Amino acid sequence: MSSIKKIKTKINSKVDAPKIKKEKFSELRQDLISGDWVVIANSRRKRPDDFKTNTVIDEKSSIESCLFCDPVSSGQEKDVLIYNTSDDDWSLRVFPNKYPAFDRPIGGKIRHQEEGPYFKMDGVGYHEVIVTKDHFERIGTMDNLKVAEIFDAFQTRYLDLMNKKSVRYIEIFHNQGKEAGASIFHPHSQLVAIPVISPYIELELQGAERYYKSNKKCVFCNIVEWELEEDKRVIFENDKFIAICPFASRRAFEVWVLPKDHEPYFERMATEDKIQVGEALNETIRKINEVLNDPDYNFYLHTSPCDGNDYGHYHWHIEILPKTSIWAGFELSTGIEISAIEPEKAATALKKA
Amino acid sequence: MSSIKKIKTKINSKVDAPKIKKEKFSELRQDLISGDWVVIANSRRKRPDDFKTNTVIDEKSSIESCLFCDPVSSGQEKDVLIYNTSDDDWSLRVFPNKYPAFDRPIGGKIRHQEEGPYFKMDGVGYHEVIVTKDHFERIGTMDNLKVAEIFDAFQTRYLDLMNKKSVRYIEIFHNQGKEAGASIFHPHSQLVAIPVISPYIELELQGAERYYKSNKKCVFCNIVEWELEEDKRVIFENDKFIAICPFASRRAFEVWVLPKDHEPYFERMATEDKIQVGEALNETIRKINEVLNDPDYNFYLHTSPCDGNDYGHYHWHIEILPKTSIWAGFELSTGIEISAIEPEKAATALKKA
Repeated sequence: MSSIKKIKTKINSKVDAPKIKKEKFSELRQDLISGDWVVIANSRRKRPDDFKTNTVIDEKSSIESCLFCDPVSSGQEKDVLIYNTSDDDWSLRVFPNKYPAFDRPIGGKIRHQEEGPYFKMDGVGYHEVIVTKDHFERIGTMDNLKVAEIFDAFQTRYLDLMNKKSVRYIEIFHNQGKEAGASIFHPHSQLVAIPVISPYIELELQGAERYYKSNKKCVFCNIVEWELEEDKRVIFENDKFIAICPFASRRAFEVWVLPKDHEPYFERMATEDKIQVGEALNETIRKINEVLNDPDYNFYLHTSPCDGNDYGHYHWHIEILPKTSIWAGFELSTGIEISAIEPEKAATALKKA
Repeated sequence: MSSIKKIKTKINSKVDAPKIKKEKFSELRQDLISGDWVVIANSRRKRPDDFKTNTVIDEKSSIESCLFCDPVSSGQEKDVLIYNTSDDDWSLRVFPNKYPAFDRPIGGKIRHQEEGPYFKMDGVGYHEVIVTKDHFERIGTMDNLKVAEIFDAFQTRYLDLMNKKSVRYIEIFHNQGKEAGASIFHPHSQLVAIPVISPYIELELQGAERYYKSNKKCVFCNIVEWELEEDKRVIFENDKFIAICPFASRRAFEVWVLPKDHEPYFERMATEDKIQVGEALNETIRKINEVLNDPDYNFYLHTSPCDGNDYGHYHWHIEILPKTSIWAGFELSTGIEISAIEPEKAATALKKA
């Protein structure tokens, strides 16, 4: 298997914001009961009237007016990383999101504030967009090495941002299609580096630690081992990665892609592994597209926080959620999802594809 | 204020299933890492090909073919409760959901099973539909007393089901509109009585207990008190209830309706309170409809479990989530929601409406 061949150019690893005094920052607010966080995004602030629409679905899809086909002339922010195929052509570029959920820190400290019984802090962080050149070519139809290049970009940016003072967790995700929340049609992933550890990661970290204490074994390693042995929910594997429909899938046709070996930290992935994960993700999404007729979907990485603590019991992985249902009142209220197919049946269909 | 005047008829409080041997039950499966539950609904089982659609949105809306305008002749299950306005007319009826997420128990024990490292159990419970007669009249445009009648029906069914052997939690919710997951246009609420305590309730119970231990005070009572004093996020109040946009709103224009007094248990609500909560919910939804132009929304009750334990630190309430955004990759991955408006601004607009 050949390796990633593109010329990688780190343009500007210093993505601190210009020295402008900002009136308002994005705000992280904590729920007093659950401890969960929400962020009020400064750059996305709307007036009440702006919410008066008949649908929440909105996607800019025309190739003529695409903001990402030529990010420079469409006024996007400066690249922080670019993969050139020649002097004047590119295959992938990374630049700060023009409408970030978190504001870049302007030196100094993050302000923590009490407000009556409540608690809030500045919503500072880094929010970047990872764009591949072709307006129509998506993961699932690409050459495996192109997907490996996307992972190389994820890792390069991760390694750069993980040591920034305010960053405790880095979230990498991809929204495909308008029902999955993509507001721009052109394929792109996003990276958000944030100053808190998110509730869902916290839950998994605690669960993994609890399991390790009881069983002296990584819970994810145990899952990998069991799934390979039982072979009822495995849809793809190569030397290094396995793709499964999880036993307690929260969505019909949910898939996880996991390293077979115990790997707590995504950012330590070797080049060979990027090629292997590229193949595993590409194949998985090709299968999902075939079985579900190109559904909208989200995928994201779950990995150990980068807050300086040891997370040796955790095991990084990718979760892929095809948009096969809407969360209605029951799910929103309880957090219990209602599925209409057994993961084993979904896996059988995906494996065959 | 006059009281609820309709004639309430409890038709059949015994809603145990017919004595048929079932091949398959709905299944509750537990995620090995997070401990969260999913349910695979037996009556809703689909084949892989059934997921091949271009959209997840599906709503049956024609009045001619409405399943709920005349539930008896459309083949719905028998009523368990009906409110008659005269011998041959009705205003509200409750019957088991024809496609329940949970199967009614057929005597005997709930089976708990291990499967390799995993854990699952029979997904038994009760799933009912609460239907008001008019095909078009929704909460927000009704007479307050009609909404009180809905709460009376919630409470009546709650009191009946809470003592069933397998029931540990009862979830009451309402989906308005197809983007909020309503598959039938005719206004209806749902009640699901389940054998586990759901993850979100668990999180709130733990948070409320933790807060009580540190502060010797109910966290919800403290919120009510602070919000009344600060008056930045209150949108409506009457003698007994308050409606606020929560400080850490997870959705733009989220609203909570809470009893002003400390009330852990929804089912203990007095008749006078049903009239008051009917007014509060009716007014809140009228305001949301006015400001957001009749958006789709979900609302649900959060109350103490009915598993026999003491939840004196908890405080029941209603959460209303207008469909103002889509959960995309970041939210799905982290559980941190990105909002585009401060709750204070949303509250100002709602208060004025």
